[in-house]
Amino acid sequence: MVNYFNSRILLQPNEVPKEWVNILPDLPSPMTPLVNPMDGKPAPPEMAFAIFPKECVLQEVSQEPTIPIPNELREIYASTYRPSPLHRALGLEKELGIEGNDIKIFYKNESYSPTGSHKPNTAIAQAYYAKKDGLEELVTETGAGQWGSGLSFGCNLFGIKCTVYMVRISFNQKPGRKILMRSYNAEVHASPSRFTESGKVFIEKDPEHPGSLGIAISEAVEHSLRSDKIRYSLGSVVNFVLLHQTIVGQEAKVQLEKVGAKPDVIIGCMGGGSNFSGLMIPFARDKIHGTLPDVEIIGVEPRACPSVCKGEYRWDFGDTSMKGPIVKMHTLGHTFIPSPIHAGGLRYHGIAPIVSILHNNKVISSVMHHQIEVIEAGLQFARTEGILPAPETAHAVKETIDQALKAKENNEKKTILFNFSGHGFFDLMAYKEYMTGDLKNYELPNEEIKKALASSEMPQIDESQF
Amino acid sequence: MVNYFNSRILLQPNEVPKEWVNILPDLPSPMTPLVNPMDGKPAPPEMAFAIFPKECVLQEVSQEPTIPIPNELREIYASTYRPSPLHRALGLEKELGIEGNDIKIFYKNESYSPTGSHKPNTAIAQAYYAKKDGLEELVTETGAGQWGSGLSFGCNLFGIKCTVYMVRISFNQKPGRKILMRSYNAEVHASPSRFTESGKVFIEKDPEHPGSLGIAISEAVEHSLRSDKIRYSLGSVVNFVLLHQTIVGQEAKVQLEKVGAKPDVIIGCMGGGSNFSGLMIPFARDKIHGTLPDVEIIGVEPRACPSVCKGEYRWDFGDTSMKGPIVKMHTLGHTFIPSPIHAGGLRYHGIAPIVSILHNNKVISSVMHHQIEVIEAGLQFARTEGILPAPETAHAVKETIDQALKAKENNEKKTILFNFSGHGFFDLMAYKEYMTGDLKNYELPNEEIKKALASSEMPQIDESQF
Repeated sequence: MVNYFNSRILLQPNEVPKEWVNILPDLPSPMTPLVNPMDGKPAPPEMAFAIFPKECVLQEVSQEPTIPIPNELREIYASTYRPSPLHRALGLEKELGIEGNDIKIFYKNESYSPTGSHKPNTAIAQAYYAKKDGLEELVTETGAGQWGSGLSFGCNLFGIKCTVYMVRISFNQKPGRKILMRSYNAEVHASPSRFTESGKVFIEKDPEHPGSLGIAISEAVEHSLRSDKIRYSLGSVVNFVLLHQTIVGQEAKVQLEKVGAKPDVIIGCMGGGSNFSGLMIPFARDKIHGTLPDVEIIGVEPRACPSVCKGEYRWDFGDTSMKGPIVKMHTLGHTFIPSPIHAGGLRYHGIAPIVSILHNNKVISSVMHHQIEVIEAGLQFARTEGILPAPETAHAVKETIDQALKAKENNEKKTILFNFSGHGFFDLMAYKEYMTGDLKNYELPNEEIKKALASSEMPQIDESQF
Repeated sequence: MVNYFNSRILLQPNEVPKEWVNILPDLPSPMTPLVNPMDGKPAPPEMAFAIFPKECVLQEVSQEPTIPIPNELREIYASTYRPSPLHRALGLEKELGIEGNDIKIFYKNESYSPTGSHKPNTAIAQAYYAKKDGLEELVTETGAGQWGSGLSFGCNLFGIKCTVYMVRISFNQKPGRKILMRSYNAEVHASPSRFTESGKVFIEKDPEHPGSLGIAISEAVEHSLRSDKIRYSLGSVVNFVLLHQTIVGQEAKVQLEKVGAKPDVIIGCMGGGSNFSGLMIPFARDKIHGTLPDVEIIGVEPRACPSVCKGEYRWDFGDTSMKGPIVKMHTLGHTFIPSPIHAGGLRYHGIAPIVSILHNNKVISSVMHHQIEVIEAGLQFARTEGILPAPETAHAVKETIDQALKAKENNEKKTILFNFSGHGFFDLMAYKEYMTGDLKNYELPNEEIKKALASSEMPQIDESQF
């Protein structure tokens, strides 16, 4: 018998995890360094110190298997929204005809944070370390605004200024996110802006320039170099961001243990890789250690931007304008501009190097889904579980449904866990277009990928020089 | 020393309250009946049965001090979002300079529900009873959409059709809420519509008619009378809705006990009175019983629509078009159209009769605030507590801040509890206007109130005939 009173597993605030999981020492093949675009050599720490808060740089290369979460930071997590709930998806299970206890679906509800996604997990940590370093401002870029909202919230908690360069087309189309950021005292500029040299180049040619994430990154990095009291902040891709997100998986482990469950399949959507990694890294480590050998870990990408599924594993620039560090990762080429799918957070040409290495070593796998089936799955989730997923999150929902139905067909027992990374209250147009039949699919054909890679000027890195 | 790990008080799902609190038998003066507009006499139960689900009608007049929450319903609450968290507002306290334990602020976080407000508390209950009655559809009206979203969500959980008549101006201006309702399978019509005779009268004269809550109510009631399988649903004002909302106060009591706190002041915003009553009724009963004699209970109204603060206590129509029942309440007159403040949920000409009776007997009191100071308080809350309040909720925040500062000035020890009835993710324009200096105050002068009352054709009810 299913127990409805056990279907949301809540931890008390004092059960906020005491440590993050650092996968670096356990990676099956060694971590690749961030490379300086100026000389093609691994960026020395002092270079990184000029860009990021100090402790984050140390975390980026740490070989400790776990890193303690400072107690002051745990207090902030606890007093705002963590631990987040783990839900058993009883409504969805019923809809899929898998009621009972053979096939179970659990989801970690990160939409529960004040800004509605997992992004504050690292935003709060970065702002905390910035404050400790005596910094006065963090600056970042944002596309649709999830990350910008998260960082604005985090900085505001510590009384640090937050400046956000927001891609102009989103700045105009998504006024909600902009107002939310400003509610947290952030300064939000449409990018390209007149506030940086990088922005002026574009805005002076075209005052209506729609902008791009690449330009916004360049503006944010340039802005951060203005003063010794300012640093740049990133919401995904780099190791320390993934590290901070492992608080999600750490909690999920404890929550599953409370109901005596062990995951057979773990699922998350992948843009830069932070929500997926946050949930799966603690379990991936168990898989590598052989204590959870058979767990299947699946990252979900949009067919419009399949960096891991179809990209090349190679050295590439993290940003379009070739100013940021060079990383080794699965990439579609740094000049690739994905089709305008609603899941803005998944429109990134590359992926976190950690995810790439785990994928190369078959610790994790990847799948792709089309926009229409994804939004359909999101709607099915809203109708059965009550919470409307962000379009990004709906990718994980779609794969979860597919996995559950496959297990049903094969008469398998299976426990599926996925990361419900955010709600869709600021992304309702995706659902509207689905309802009116206006939603489109975008597939990236193989020849287009070849073209995208060929047209991106790729850095030539000599690894033997490291 | 303040303990941050104690600042969110969470109950486990199996701690969902087992009973609602019915204040009727404990009211200091007797409850007034719903009166039939056709003959001016108390509406007989069979008349109410044709409009509302049966169990709700029985609850409307029950004299039992508590009413058990059916276990199936508790399971639904537990598996979706209840109990909701109780937060200690440590960030706000710090900002107000009242750190320590002399003045404490707690808030019950109803924004945590899937639709973002307290509305599903009664929506789920009404849908549950409708299902039990074998009904196939619930129909309602909605202004800004909080109630419509709540009922759509509730009906969908039980597989009942939900039809919502949404005031046309909101239908056009707030596409988000409309899409959310449709995500839950609801049928949403702009009102006035061509689907009812009541609507046709207006829409055929003016195809762009902006609509009003009064017209939308008439359409919904007319629609509900079409079939024996359809009933009308209300989101506030009537006794059984307030009853369902007492789950909020029941939980808050247990949560406060867990940290050894007793409220000195309880605050909520008042539109129809449901979120305010939901929190305060269990405590008001203690006040009446003498076990919490000194608790101050304050309802907060907008200065643009001060039904309790400035209205007359008398018999009036609940709806603008004089089709629904007549109730005795504080009213500004049923034809009164409040100024277009952002707190759409507080733009009601009357108030729940229970609230009126408690106010007449000085169990509760009421205050008014201006829109600009309210939104300013909402922003202060977002900046210190992280959650952006709905404009309605921000009224309670404003009064909470005032009460805390007064206690500070007077060196008093005080524990303040308020109902954080909903988040403001669908109401960001209020904050935008505040930031750009475009937000306006609306005061309703006494002579305007006299005019509004005089121009409403008031029913003459002879109570001696009851």
